[in-house]
Amino acid sequence: SINGDRLWDSLMEMAKIGKTAKDGVCRLALTDLDRESRDLFIKWCKAEGCSIRIDKMGNIFARREGKNPDLPPIVMGSHLDSQPTGGKYDGVYGVLSGLEVIRALNEAKYETEAPIEVVSWTNEEGSRFAPAMVASGVFAKVFDLDYGHSRADVDGKTMGEELKRIGYLGDDDPTIDAHPMGAYFEAHIEQGPILEDEGKDIGIVTDAQGQRWYEINLTGVEAHAGPTPMKTRKDALLGAARIIDLVNKIGLDRSPLACATVGMMQIHPNSRNVIPGHVFLTVDFRHPVDAVLVEMDAALRKGVAVITDDIGLTAEIDQIFSYAPVPFDKTCVDAVRSGVEIGGYSAREIVSGAGHDACYLAQVTPTAMIFIPCVDGISHNEIEEVHKHWSDAGGQVLLHAVLAKADE
Amino acid sequence: SINGDRLWDSLMEMAKIGKTAKDGVCRLALTDLDRESRDLFIKWCKAEGCSIRIDKMGNIFARREGKNPDLPPIVMGSHLDSQPTGGKYDGVYGVLSGLEVIRALNEAKYETEAPIEVVSWTNEEGSRFAPAMVASGVFAKVFDLDYGHSRADVDGKTMGEELKRIGYLGDDDPTIDAHPMGAYFEAHIEQGPILEDEGKDIGIVTDAQGQRWYEINLTGVEAHAGPTPMKTRKDALLGAARIIDLVNKIGLDRSPLACATVGMMQIHPNSRNVIPGHVFLTVDFRHPVDAVLVEMDAALRKGVAVITDDIGLTAEIDQIFSYAPVPFDKTCVDAVRSGVEIGGYSAREIVSGAGHDACYLAQVTPTAMIFIPCVDGISHNEIEEVHKHWSDAGGQVLLHAVLAKADE
Ligand SMILES: NC(=O)NCCC(=O)O
Ligand SMILES: NC(=O)NCCC(=O)O
Repeated sequence: SINGDRLWDSLMEMAKIGKTAKDGVCRLALTDLDRESRDLFIKWCKAEGCSIRIDKMGNIFARREGKNPDLPPIVMGSHLDSQPTGGKYDGVYGVLSGLEVIRALNEAKYETEAPIEVVSWTNEEGSRFAPAMVASGVFAKVFDLDYGHSRADVDGKTMGEELKRIGYLGDDDPTIDAHPMGAYFEAHIEQGPILEDEGKDIGIVTDAQGQRWYEINLTGVEAHAGPTPMKTRKDALLGAARIIDLVNKIGLDRSPLACATVGMMQIHPNSRNVIPGHVFLTVDFRHPVDAVLVEMDAALRKGVAVITDDIGLTAEIDQIFSYAPVPFDKTCVDAVRSGVEIGGYSAREIVSGAGHDACYLAQVTPTAMIFIPCVDGISHNEIEEVHKHWSDAGGQVLLHAVLAKADE
Repeated sequence: SINGDRLWDSLMEMAKIGKTAKDGVCRLALTDLDRESRDLFIKWCKAEGCSIRIDKMGNIFARREGKNPDLPPIVMGSHLDSQPTGGKYDGVYGVLSGLEVIRALNEAKYETEAPIEVVSWTNEEGSRFAPAMVASGVFAKVFDLDYGHSRADVDGKTMGEELKRIGYLGDDDPTIDAHPMGAYFEAHIEQGPILEDEGKDIGIVTDAQGQRWYEINLTGVEAHAGPTPMKTRKDALLGAARIIDLVNKIGLDRSPLACATVGMMQIHPNSRNVIPGHVFLTVDFRHPVDAVLVEMDAALRKGVAVITDDIGLTAEIDQIFSYAPVPFDKTCVDAVRSGVEIGGYSAREIVSGAGHDACYLAQVTPTAMIFIPCVDGISHNEIEEVHKHWSDAGGQVLLHAVLAKADE
């Protein structure tokens, strides 16, 4: 059995790093606060006798040896970075429930066949550095190392520079080649309302939706808000406004499965009495069926062309990131299901709406995910909350799923 | 006669301070660059034998004595601050054409009856510190000194602090009470397309439009862009987008006289995969008839209520600034007209679409403005341009308008 109180205490302890006024967490990837959370995680792992490996993307692997050190490890994990207004559980829960599994095994002096590891992946959120899950993407060889290191934040600082600055640019090859796994399990909060609405403690995650991320640059003509007649304007912000409405409609028309969001925007020159000449905005499309994403892509491009023609703007649309819907590994999903049965929890199968490091891992190793509910389905928000009995249940299911694979 | 080449050279010299890559100017109010431009202006004025006075709002008055020092001075001027992506002429032209009038009088050893002054007003643009024309507003007693000093930029730095920091917090009472004027003349670029379209060199400005500036704060619920169903979202950015379209329609419906602009926006948390929970945006309404501004105000409030009800947002609307349409002084407008006739320029009467320091001055002293065209009517843009013969003409008309009043 895991110790639910110990897991909860560790969650609360970690949440102090980057704590916000509204009791959330702001711990952007590769900031000093991210370093602090990494240091604490490593301290805890070392206290459990784990060996530590850090790779060139700053991913941290903590290893508990098995009876048979030649077997590939069974790996658990998620991420420690957060959104600018993030919560205490998104990512952290997957890392610390993995650590709790190791603590419980140590306490029980239980030796597994295969080694067991906990990993913390760098920059999962994609908020400071786009795209999301870039380090697990490098691990799965979706991106190469140069791409990973060259991702830059709004100030132009790159991941490579920032890894070095905070002392987490490791030496190891950051890909699966150097580090084969027996299986990968990620426990995470659902970040949506389904489990709580249906009164289930656990989500057995069978698939993850596909995603496409875009950047749109609109260019019009800056001019004075006073003496410039309405009819001669080329207002880039008016174009952006209509694109936001278009994106919303593209999502709504394919609801409830589709999601479509404009989350970020930069307006230039952003002065009250200047008609904006340039706007940068991002689009995030999601759907469990790839063909629908293709259709959403076409609707976006067509709609943007109509809007910009009408106003006299030029538009550049870049799809900066995409992945197809991900089916998880049947044997790993079964291991999760057996963990649910052993614990006697209420559960349902579920499709992940969010992207997770597990989505990339699934391309290179047998993978599954365990969801626990979060209050009102709210996440990426400082008020993100979890009931302790959900946290207990997720840790317990993770323990049994891992044991099923490690002792296979 | 003024020396058009000397005026032009001074314009080009001043444009080096804050010069941008696209040959525009970024010289925000009370920055180090603003200090540099003030220092240069004072150096030039002192070289002409002028005495300098700086008041508590950082307004700079340079004085050339008249035969009768007891007469109130005839004042010319405008501002040296710019938009973030501003041009070389907006404001600067009015200050430096005033200086050129003094240089020309010195060269001709011409003594006027009344003293003559050039003034540079602080923070006319309203870009770094809202609202616009705040220091001439204090001068005209529309705002009190505390209000002026407490205006803050996005980083929370106030005008009072920044005036002190750059060494331009003067000792003098910053109101008309301490400094009565005989008349005020402001030369400025039109910032709209009318004069150039009609092939006129000079605009005789009879009135200025009224303005209303608003700040709108929209609050929804931040949530994850992936697993949060479209129908349960409270997307503050979607609300903002619809308000931008509404504002545009309010302007278009009352075109060609009305203007309506959203120029500035801040999105929170501004992360690609987070549904925005909070948006701040500004609205700028203009019209030459106050009753229409009242009607635009009502349309805004009604429209915002419908939009926010529909999405489930809360909205706060603050009108932070307004002034009624301004008629300029008949005798001063006639002085401008006589200057046009003496010079033999092509001219027309015109209503100012932009706000100017002259709009506040008009409330406390006889005031008029002289417009020169700008290329394609473009301003508040780095590509703002003026043909030299327009600059020459404006300086010449200013000289004669001022002489008409100073020797009255
Ligand atoms: N789980 C999570 O918040 N991941 C960030 C990437 C995404 O937006 O899906
Ligand atoms: N002339 C000028 O650009 N003034 C700024 C205030 C306004 O927006 O009208």
